[in-house]
Amino acid sequence: MEAHRTDARTPAFRYAARAEGMVASEIRALFAVASRPEVVSLAGGMPYVSALPLDGIGEMVSRLIATHGAEALQYASAQGDPALREHICDVMKLEGITASADDVVVTVGSQQALDMVTRLFVDPGDVVIAEGPSYVGALGTFAAYQADVVHVPMDAQGLIPEALRETLTRLRSQGRPVKLLYTVPNFQNPGGVTLSAARRHEILEICETFDLLIVEDNPYGLLRYEGDPIKPFRAEDPDRVIYLGSFSKTLASGLRVGWALAPHAVRAKMVLAMESAVLSHSAFSQLTVREYLATQPWREQIKVFRELYRDRRDAMLTALDDTLAERCSWTNPEGGFFVWLTLPEGLDSKAMAPRAIANRVAYVPGTGFYADGTGHRHLRLSFCYPEPARIREGVRRLAVTIDEELALHDTFGPVPTRPTSGPHHPGPDLA
Amino acid sequence: MEAHRTDARTPAFRYAARAEGMVASEIRALFAVASRPEVVSLAGGMPYVSALPLDGIGEMVSRLIATHGAEALQYASAQGDPALREHICDVMKLEGITASADDVVVTVGSQQALDMVTRLFVDPGDVVIAEGPSYVGALGTFAAYQADVVHVPMDAQGLIPEALRETLTRLRSQGRPVKLLYTVPNFQNPGGVTLSAARRHEILEICETFDLLIVEDNPYGLLRYEGDPIKPFRAEDPDRVIYLGSFSKTLASGLRVGWALAPHAVRAKMVLAMESAVLSHSAFSQLTVREYLATQPWREQIKVFRELYRDRRDAMLTALDDTLAERCSWTNPEGGFFVWLTLPEGLDSKAMAPRAIANRVAYVPGTGFYADGTGHRHLRLSFCYPEPARIREGVRRLAVTIDEELALHDTFGPVPTRPTSGPHHPGPDLA
Repeated sequence: MEAHRTDARTPAFRYAARAEGMVASEIRALFAVASRPEVVSLAGGMPYVSALPLDGIGEMVSRLIATHGAEALQYASAQGDPALREHICDVMKLEGITASADDVVVTVGSQQALDMVTRLFVDPGDVVIAEGPSYVGALGTFAAYQADVVHVPMDAQGLIPEALRETLTRLRSQGRPVKLLYTVPNFQNPGGVTLSAARRHEILEICETFDLLIVEDNPYGLLRYEGDPIKPFRAEDPDRVIYLGSFSKTLASGLRVGWALAPHAVRAKMVLAMESAVLSHSAFSQLTVREYLATQPWREQIKVFRELYRDRRDAMLTALDDTLAERCSWTNPEGGFFVWLTLPEGLDSKAMAPRAIANRVAYVPGTGFYADGTGHRHLRLSFCYPEPARIREGVRRLAVTIDEELALHDTFGPVPTRPTSGPHHPGPDLA
Repeated sequence: MEAHRTDARTPAFRYAARAEGMVASEIRALFAVASRPEVVSLAGGMPYVSALPLDGIGEMVSRLIATHGAEALQYASAQGDPALREHICDVMKLEGITASADDVVVTVGSQQALDMVTRLFVDPGDVVIAEGPSYVGALGTFAAYQADVVHVPMDAQGLIPEALRETLTRLRSQGRPVKLLYTVPNFQNPGGVTLSAARRHEILEICETFDLLIVEDNPYGLLRYEGDPIKPFRAEDPDRVIYLGSFSKTLASGLRVGWALAPHAVRAKMVLAMESAVLSHSAFSQLTVREYLATQPWREQIKVFRELYRDRRDAMLTALDDTLAERCSWTNPEGGFFVWLTLPEGLDSKAMAPRAIANRVAYVPGTGFYADGTGHRHLRLSFCYPEPARIREGVRRLAVTIDEELALHDTFGPVPTRPTSGPHHPGPDLA
């Protein structure tokens, strides 16, 4: 009966072409070390969920299961719970968006919304335009669908419209199929910059001229620490924009509840894409968010998060000013989680990472945020998770690291830039 | 400032080729009606979660948030919670599988596990072998990746090895790239049949000969109501089999916690695929399952489900015997949720569906379970959700419907078979 076992061969795993690009980042091993308590991690994008009223949420969920258990533990509709979608429209109203719950699709975090959009629109070889640098998780998704990501540079005002126009003109003259513009307009991840209102109008015009879909990813919009909110693209053009939102930063990342607000013509296909991917998102997670929005003071909780993160941002910016003003430059985020730092010429953030870890501080090297292997002179610092005193200590250690690296550089010349292997997958804690 | 709005054009949504196959099923509208309370639905595959001890689960989750809230509400690792993966190995032990938690990847239901496997292995145009009929959700996933599904017939003992060998020989001679065999060996959805032990060995040999990966989907394995368990493929050949499991039927579908047990060589790419799709599954859902398995009498609860579903299966089989023995044939499931019924010659389950709804009973027409447009003479009946008395009434209404249809047929001749449009997406309630 077991005769066939003797000539069993190890199967040849013939992967799909799209799987070839799925390789673990070289820096992944470093990050395993970065999670040790003696290391100050300025790398991860984890929200500080300990600031939530855990007892209240626990009681709320217990009540939810007692009163709506048969619903919370059952399959949901592929589009998502209708009452939750109504609440999501209320949340988006705070950003200036008027929308119908019928056009909202609830997803497994906004990451899955991005996966579904890419599934619907991107054939292998299609071009996706993204800010340079761009969100590492988006680059991973685009790579999984064999998109060709073309970066357009940013400055302190965000994506540069003239550079976008030039890039699109060039791609059109080359006959390249450009499918969408992916942008994080508010407190960009990793750039920390915000796209100005004037530029949003200009970019919208350019996207109309080139008939380009805009995928607007706005996980941090409600976490603004200074300045006035700027209207999202979606508020200006509901037909051209797929808007992605998330409760990961305003409530809890562990619920994995995000959403896409799609043009009405696209929504039905989004739902079918959801069915093909997961049947439906967790009713348990969805109803937990629904109850939270219906019964808890969620607007006040966002204010709590805002105060908390503002303090941390201020701690980081002050510490950078105190220690690195003469050697580095960095962005000045009005909200969100991230500062983007530029090293002195000749330094390489990826080559420097082992020294940083040895000095007990972690960051994400800039190369992770580019699909084209650039970004060596940059790095991303997060201020969302560690407390202010830890942030100050982390920046101090970073300054020491940069000093040591500069001394080495003065002695031996610049570190040779190592080739990178496309978009990285540094793990969800770096979202 | 708003000048550009005047010449704004509606964008041309240029979908990816894979999106073309994503069309809503024609029977979807029918199912909206089927959910009305006066209709006995024998269509859906929803587990009867009301049989769970809801108060106990509510208290457990409340405690979980109070004691592990910062973990339960935070991002998880892309592979899934390590302790949960250990528990999953204990669950698989009940099926005769010995595995390391290191090779388990937690997914958003086993549907997402299937999506990830297809993402990793299937290029557009690759052939996937599936039982005919096969699980409708799998057909939707395969269609989303532009796989070419080739069905191999079953009989009362499950997939027919000789037919598999012939199909593979033919495809090889045509130079077609065959990537994997997708099979639901236990209490198949929708067929209700179980693959015999002898055939499992034979099929494994064939897959070795043709170097074919086996994707073994086993959501119902622990819900056996009679007869002896049969070893899964995975227990026989850990290297060739990707095994998919789920808590949707043994605990709660609303948590969306499933898993893939992958050969060690494949596991790392599965994790990268998960990151590209959702970053990580919900820690909240994962830790809820972890706590449930660690603190609640889950083995006893599976016995409760088993008794409950056995009664419902018996109610359905007895009712079928009492009303349709002379006109129809059907399978005799030893477990799971489904009976597969064959109509008298000349009848068409899809054409008959409006009459069934008018008679206040719903089923899923057989065409939904074939990628090749066949299946008109068959339909799937579920006994998992309605109580026994409702099942009996539903079968009685089905018998009336078949009688009426037969009378029409005798008068006017057979109903012309309508063309179908590839795999359907009848919604998650039909899982």
